[in-house]
Amino acid sequence: MPSTNLTFPDRNAHRAWLATQAALPAGFRVGTTRFEFMPREAPKPAKMTLTLIALDKPTENFAAVFTKNAFPGAPVIVGRARLKEPKLGAIIVNNKISNVCAPGGVEASERICAETARLLGLGAQEILPSSTGVIGWGLPVDSMLTGLPAAVAALTNPSIMPAAEGIVTTDLYPKVRRADLSGGSIVGIAKGAGMIEPNMATMLVYLLTDLAVPRAELRAILARVSDATFNCISVDSDTSTSDTVALVSSNRVPCKDLAAFEAARLQLCRDLAEDVVRNGEGVRHVIRVEVKNAATPSLARQLGKAVVNAPLFKCAVAGNDPNVGRLVQAIGKHVGAHAPGTDLSKLRATIGGIEIFAHGAFQLNPEKETALVAHLRSAELYASAPTKDGIFSAPIDFPPHERCVEIIVDLGSGSAGCTVFGADLTHEYVSENADYRS
Amino acid sequence: MPSTNLTFPDRNAHRAWLATQAALPAGFRVGTTRFEFMPREAPKPAKMTLTLIALDKPTENFAAVFTKNAFPGAPVIVGRARLKEPKLGAIIVNNKISNVCAPGGVEASERICAETARLLGLGAQEILPSSTGVIGWGLPVDSMLTGLPAAVAALTNPSIMPAAEGIVTTDLYPKVRRADLSGGSIVGIAKGAGMIEPNMATMLVYLLTDLAVPRAELRAILARVSDATFNCISVDSDTSTSDTVALVSSNRVPCKDLAAFEAARLQLCRDLAEDVVRNGEGVRHVIRVEVKNAATPSLARQLGKAVVNAPLFKCAVAGNDPNVGRLVQAIGKHVGAHAPGTDLSKLRATIGGIEIFAHGAFQLNPEKETALVAHLRSAELYASAPTKDGIFSAPIDFPPHERCVEIIVDLGSGSAGCTVFGADLTHEYVSENADYRS
Repeated sequence: MPSTNLTFPDRNAHRAWLATQAALPAGFRVGTTRFEFMPREAPKPAKMTLTLIALDKPTENFAAVFTKNAFPGAPVIVGRARLKEPKLGAIIVNNKISNVCAPGGVEASERICAETARLLGLGAQEILPSSTGVIGWGLPVDSMLTGLPAAVAALTNPSIMPAAEGIVTTDLYPKVRRADLSGGSIVGIAKGAGMIEPNMATMLVYLLTDLAVPRAELRAILARVSDATFNCISVDSDTSTSDTVALVSSNRVPCKDLAAFEAARLQLCRDLAEDVVRNGEGVRHVIRVEVKNAATPSLARQLGKAVVNAPLFKCAVAGNDPNVGRLVQAIGKHVGAHAPGTDLSKLRATIGGIEIFAHGAFQLNPEKETALVAHLRSAELYASAPTKDGIFSAPIDFPPHERCVEIIVDLGSGSAGCTVFGADLTHEYVSENADYRS
Repeated sequence: MPSTNLTFPDRNAHRAWLATQAALPAGFRVGTTRFEFMPREAPKPAKMTLTLIALDKPTENFAAVFTKNAFPGAPVIVGRARLKEPKLGAIIVNNKISNVCAPGGVEASERICAETARLLGLGAQEILPSSTGVIGWGLPVDSMLTGLPAAVAALTNPSIMPAAEGIVTTDLYPKVRRADLSGGSIVGIAKGAGMIEPNMATMLVYLLTDLAVPRAELRAILARVSDATFNCISVDSDTSTSDTVALVSSNRVPCKDLAAFEAARLQLCRDLAEDVVRNGEGVRHVIRVEVKNAATPSLARQLGKAVVNAPLFKCAVAGNDPNVGRLVQAIGKHVGAHAPGTDLSKLRATIGGIEIFAHGAFQLNPEKETALVAHLRSAELYASAPTKDGIFSAPIDFPPHERCVEIIVDLGSGSAGCTVFGADLTHEYVSENADYRS
């Protein structure tokens, strides 16, 4: 569960709460624009939103981590180069097309940066580009260049909400989290939904702060925090080619306590990472796996991931079916394939606080079964139902609650731990990714 | 595609073809019995089939490989011990309950072996047990002991069909393949369907031959052939706790050509492994990935597995959507996480013979898109449609054809290769594993 324990009766209540999170730190403005274009690779028109996040004054204090997928998108290639530049002045993001391995992709990304810079009176190397969406298609550069002035003209908004809404693709709702400290603030937004098993970075996440933190510290903190948060989630085990987390300071407020800054950042990113899972494609249950007393932190994380990535267990959770055999199968699969020799003799596992495995054997009876079903039902976000033509889609565009399926895997043979967030595997996920042409 | 290229208009045609495969090699008989029982862990009765495969005379020439899941079923623990015994006289298999980590599981398995042996006039250590089904429940030993005499009494059948039908769980149809050589034969049956990504062994597979092959050669051949066939498939990336492949010779016919025996075994196991995928839970498309010119055989196999285990790509195939970006994402994810430094600059990928990636970029246009959709449609086993309450299930219990989605991933930077078989991710898979309580 995140640091908050919120429930929302409806969309309006959720959007009202988001508004309480959304005030921009001093020194930032956002603007967006939306337009239609004709993709080269497909027969019908599509829509794209351009999101511009600009600093009042370029900053030397910025950090970013990117996907380790071996086919990174062109904006990731450009973004890695930007890390060496002295200053950052703005971030330009498009959705709908991810610009991955498209012919001329890097040149297209640089053309967007150059025009954004010209309109803002900056250098092209001061613009960080991001793209998310269909992999394989090329950017509609001319349409984007035509649209850019409108995004620049919209750069008056004191709220991050237009950006949180502008960067989404299949997300059901925007995700915003904030932390206020030392007279300044950190505000973060995330785009998630599908192709989510970040590796050393994640989806698109932008973290803005007015607290002045030097570049070196900012980058070290970003690496540590991303590893402990975004790198511990998986919606569907697929690692996107566009994953990016950027952290930018406008330096308006002195930061007197770096440790407090890192702690606030960590909690904010934990919450945002969990938001990404809760709003993952087709997610009806968030699964929280706490692996305890493992020999190494790496084993703890990998075992947690093995549980939340096991399709049969994910399906069982979707059906509120406490099929604990599939949980143990997943642990055994990982250890057998990747960590043979691991001592599993002291394994103790609970779901919703109910012991289901100990002393080398399952600990099951009909009463526990009833209690496990009740726990799974309480963590369900909504009931599944198809339309009459057999398409499944989420009936909500807000998170009704923040409860999880709570699993503890205690290995009893070490002192390392990790908490991993994942999700069930549902008809809604299959409909999202098989029933519609992307 | 398997060595055969069969099409079946209906169930009867498929069953008639299976009958042509099913004559037992000399020296074997099979018998089965089915009964109802009350599980300790669940509130309603269930049904189990006992399948007995007996030799006329115990043999020293037998081999078996088992799952590497770190929580093997009790029969796997017993089976590993049996490999050290001088002779094997019979195999006793139950479905419905897998007897994994159930309290007293090994003792339960040994009691079944002892009673089977007593009825056959053998020693308990001459019986190989197997169990498949729900993980976590205990075997209903008393009901099984009561049922055993009926299975022994049925030991008159000259066909392997009752065994092929007796060992199944969620399989849609039995799987039988044969090879005739040197005046003898090899006949194999498989149980598959879900929790299928074998690791060094697989599901339940029994291979019977009357050709006399010494134990040492039999075991070496089984290890090599299993690695090249069953270890190259994945329905859902989950590795069962019960995977077992057993190969037993009745020694009735001299085997003059061991190389021919191994070649026949290899082809038979390839065909049987593909049968298992084609009849996997919810499978509507079989995906065949040929990885070529890789630096190592291990990289080739892992890349093939990464493609067939990528949920977003699997969903796209289910929807006849040639979302080639998801294919390249899967390759990049694996290389980024597990084989960084691999040279991907010469990657060339085709689907259905159509080039979709080369020279570091996608090679797409609307005409290719149309041809790719046609290829995916031609490989579809059946069209998906829900019942009016939103449950999806396969409308066939036979394989209409043996066509695959044909993918070639040519790395152009080595000489190793591997062919991997997988499947799409469908509403039928989710219904099978989430909509019904197991």
